[in-house]
Amino acid sequence: MTRIACCQISPAIADLAGNSALIEDQITAAVAAGADIIVLPELVTSGYMLADADEARSVALTPDSPEFIKWAAAAGDSVVIGGFCEVGEDGRLYNSAAVVDANGVIATYRKTHLWDREKLIFTPGAALPPVLKTRHGVIAVMVCYDLEFPELTRLAAVQGAELIVAPVNWPLFPRPEGERPGEVVTAMSTARVNKIAVAACDRSGVERGQRWTAGSAIVDPDGWVVATAGPDAGLAIADIDLSVTHDKSLTEHVDLLADRRLDLY
Amino acid sequence: MTRIACCQISPAIADLAGNSALIEDQITAAVAAGADIIVLPELVTSGYMLADADEARSVALTPDSPEFIKWAAAAGDSVVIGGFCEVGEDGRLYNSAAVVDANGVIATYRKTHLWDREKLIFTPGAALPPVLKTRHGVIAVMVCYDLEFPELTRLAAVQGAELIVAPVNWPLFPRPEGERPGEVVTAMSTARVNKIAVAACDRSGVERGQRWTAGSAIVDPDGWVVATAGPDAGLAIADIDLSVTHDKSLTEHVDLLADRRLDLY
Repeated sequence: MTRIACCQISPAIADLAGNSALIEDQITAAVAAGADIIVLPELVTSGYMLADADEARSVALTPDSPEFIKWAAAAGDSVVIGGFCEVGEDGRLYNSAAVVDANGVIATYRKTHLWDREKLIFTPGAALPPVLKTRHGVIAVMVCYDLEFPELTRLAAVQGAELIVAPVNWPLFPRPEGERPGEVVTAMSTARVNKIAVAACDRSGVERGQRWTAGSAIVDPDGWVVATAGPDAGLAIADIDLSVTHDKSLTEHVDLLADRRLDLY
Repeated sequence: MTRIACCQISPAIADLAGNSALIEDQITAAVAAGADIIVLPELVTSGYMLADADEARSVALTPDSPEFIKWAAAAGDSVVIGGFCEVGEDGRLYNSAAVVDANGVIATYRKTHLWDREKLIFTPGAALPPVLKTRHGVIAVMVCYDLEFPELTRLAAVQGAELIVAPVNWPLFPRPEGERPGEVVTAMSTARVNKIAVAACDRSGVERGQRWTAGSAIVDPDGWVVATAGPDAGLAIADIDLSVTHDKSLTEHVDLLADRRLDLY
């Protein structure tokens, strides 16, 4: 079993130092709770509602930034995934995710599907999400809106990912009484049609007038939500057997990947 | 507004005449309820749990079969979609759907993704689902397990479908208390990530030991279930404005189809 934790927190806009301390605390707490894989929200180092590229640049990091040394120091035996505002070697800004273990940053991913006004600040990533063999399972790393593209999530399953981890910041959309956020519905569908686990770590709170969904969800490979984090800051935590994701059969004659009609599409 | 109806009924195995009468009654009732588009279950003419190819062949129809003349006679101004066991001009058996209006059969589709033991009886269809401009909107026709393949549902949206209609027979799978059937979760996700409506017409009852989900659902283009048919035989009916499906934008800078990264996948 792999213990997965989503730290649904509320970073402060453009407060690198304050957010860094908050993140360190959260990683420490999740490790103490026995988490093997720890997911943090999108743009957790910087906050999301950056006014423009200038402000984003003022809080941009690189994988060599000292903030990630603190993540690594707190990580223990876990693998930590969180979003950050990245300035590339090309001088461009990216909405990125870092994958960190005790040794430091082991991978980064630049969000390929930018949401709304992100397009005015960030450059979309040029590479597909990494599928990483970590000490705690094979994980595909995506960021927020990426999850809405079945092309991308399917590809992760085909490439052998056991778990999709996604730092997200889901802006609050209206939804009917009693319904889960639509993004969670899609995470559930992604899990069940691919027999893969999904862990999406949202943020809570309000930031420069933007209310967030606080919809963090851990979904098992059958497509059922096994943990959420409540309506405010909180921890979603669940144990999932990721090994079942390698067998895509549901019955004797059904195999979710082999049954694709690759001759038709 | 387009009025969509799913007739969740319980056809009897291998009883062509009885099922034909039941179907005629259902179409008549749905037309009386003002339905523009009427969806019937998968293999509604024959029942599903056919023992083998011989039994399937004994109840197989062609688009020219007189049963469909009755559908047409009852259809009024509506468009009717229902599943049938088809014997092709090649002598092979297909798990098909017929699209019928007052003029007769206007299209057929042969299920491309066969579920489980269907593979022992039927030949998979060789052509993608049709996307048809009907008098009541642009509809894509799929059958049951087809809906589980985002490749196929995405393609329907890209091809301009406003509504996916799907005759289904969902075998009852266990699910956590309070959850919708997983297939409905996927229909909801399909609707919201493509901004398209989905109408899946399931069956009710038990057939040769197989319990059915009775999960018929009409999903609006925002991804919310707007009608179901209850746990037994029943009618799901809803009015949906299909015209909204042509605008795939959610905000000023978000467009669900234009935002795909076709350079990457």
